[in-house]
Amino acid sequence: MGGDHGPSVTVAACLAFLRQQSLASIILVGREEVLRAELARLHHSESIRLRVLHAEDVVQMDEDPKLALKNKKQSSMRLAINLVKSGEAQCCVSAGNTGALMATAKFVLKTIPGIDRPAIATTLPTRTGHTYVLDLGANVDCTAEHLLQFGIMGSILASAVDRKPAPTVGLLNIGHEDMKGGEVVRRAGELLRGAPIRFVGNVEGDDVYKGTVDVVVCDGFVGNVALKTSEGLARMIAAILKEEFGRNLLTRLAALAAMPVLNAIRHRLDGRRYNGASLLGLRGIVVKSHGSADAFAFQCALEAAFNEASSGILARITEDIAAAGVPVAV
Amino acid sequence: MGGDHGPSVTVAACLAFLRQQSLASIILVGREEVLRAELARLHHSESIRLRVLHAEDVVQMDEDPKLALKNKKQSSMRLAINLVKSGEAQCCVSAGNTGALMATAKFVLKTIPGIDRPAIATTLPTRTGHTYVLDLGANVDCTAEHLLQFGIMGSILASAVDRKPAPTVGLLNIGHEDMKGGEVVRRAGELLRGAPIRFVGNVEGDDVYKGTVDVVVCDGFVGNVALKTSEGLARMIAAILKEEFGRNLLTRLAALAAMPVLNAIRHRLDGRRYNGASLLGLRGIVVKSHGSADAFAFQCALEAAFNEASSGILARITEDIAAAGVPVAV
Repeated sequence: MGGDHGPSVTVAACLAFLRQQSLASIILVGREEVLRAELARLHHSESIRLRVLHAEDVVQMDEDPKLALKNKKQSSMRLAINLVKSGEAQCCVSAGNTGALMATAKFVLKTIPGIDRPAIATTLPTRTGHTYVLDLGANVDCTAEHLLQFGIMGSILASAVDRKPAPTVGLLNIGHEDMKGGEVVRRAGELLRGAPIRFVGNVEGDDVYKGTVDVVVCDGFVGNVALKTSEGLARMIAAILKEEFGRNLLTRLAALAAMPVLNAIRHRLDGRRYNGASLLGLRGIVVKSHGSADAFAFQCALEAAFNEASSGILARITEDIAAAGVPVAV
Repeated sequence: MGGDHGPSVTVAACLAFLRQQSLASIILVGREEVLRAELARLHHSESIRLRVLHAEDVVQMDEDPKLALKNKKQSSMRLAINLVKSGEAQCCVSAGNTGALMATAKFVLKTIPGIDRPAIATTLPTRTGHTYVLDLGANVDCTAEHLLQFGIMGSILASAVDRKPAPTVGLLNIGHEDMKGGEVVRRAGELLRGAPIRFVGNVEGDDVYKGTVDVVVCDGFVGNVALKTSEGLARMIAAILKEEFGRNLLTRLAALAAMPVLNAIRHRLDGRRYNGASLLGLRGIVVKSHGSADAFAFQCALEAAFNEASSGILARITEDIAAAGVPVAV
């Protein structure tokens, strides 16, 4: 039960999630005395749908992933992933250390045959809905083959979770023409054109929020920078709105008059609704929540994991990757 | 006189700029009959401060940069850059084809000794002011040495134009720790730490709009994606604001009540104020305006060029790069 706020946020989110999803059940993994105290504080206790599994250790947010993997075999993170491996759980959701979660999940669950490296995928809002973007930081040096695998996995994710028959896939580049970008990106474009997906070619940064395609493929460095730059810009705009509407009595009255509109805008731009990034390409479903998630945001991550687990995505990735005969980089 | 809108935008912007900057004068380069007609339409004619230089050719927006360089020796773009080379003009501003502008400027003006490749630099708004970001797309495959040169040039740009004695420089990465990112970025971090600038280490995407540093260094692929993603997000947010405030009679009344506040917000977020990207590292000042710039935006690009030309930046880059003994990649 990691994350910046610990069980005070995650346990409340789990209870809210269980009230909404009557078919779901949850195993809380962490220090049992802390989890039971938190449940009691919220006037709840363990039940068939909400069990507690004790873990001695916790992986710290700034811990080295390799050391965590080696030394923390009884951590809540490791035990939660073990539950997915054994089939006792259909998915694992964590707000903890991203690097450690990826390293542990990769070590315990292994990748799907034909998938060289897992990717981190999330949805971002667009004018008309949302777009899946991957990779968001798991892989800083990608080969063209990796980007091809991301494209196939992203297409299956969008198709399985959103029930879109043939989602469109674009390759993030600095121009729409095929010859744009460096060697790896150009070669990835060639491979994606030959893949059994609806690849539409290059897209640019502004296509992400335009919703030009259902899936945007990029390497983890570029995806991470794009995502965090967006977060920074959104926070700056929110701060400016707050500042200008709070400037004086007149502007505060204007804010009052505009409150229903401002609330509608806030809801549409609420980043918490997009919390929950999938670690795609593993033989099990693992979803990463923002470390700073509040209860509402963490509940969204639980829903993302539940939808993914219900979508049969693992079997589809396994089949489609085998059918596509995807080359694996060595 | 390129750009998407042609002289109808740029000539009006030049006239407005000259009214503001009494020390400046402008040479309009393009088809003289078109430029003179546009001047006449605006009740102006040529003067000592506003001359027209005829150019037979125009580089098209989608023209191949190499072909433009080879075949369009009488283009308005080429002649304008020639004016900088000969010293008749102190800077060149163009809203035309970026690739052709860079290729032509590099060919005609050459780079400053010690600078391997020019970079495209612009300012982006932050909560408290602005940040310089480079490169924004001139170089898709950068070496660590290129990133070092960008850091030094960016530092001088911020220092010269904003008169900051020691601007802070950050390296765009996917984490603050030194070991983050790929090999090139890690090595660039080492080189920047040894450079005679105020390098503060890695910054992340959200640091750009936070204003954590005065200068953000990145390769052109990453910078271009970050910039365009930001533009896309800003446009989406603007569209959502418009949609929600225009939804019905009540929300339109709320917009009316909030109009002064909304105008203040619009002004602070007005991307046109940040129009005008510098092609840094050349033996002359060349500024690229957005192709889609309106007259106000193009005037901002003219001001950016004027400020750069008045700052003595070329001499400073030449001296500092020589003093730093910057290694040039081969």
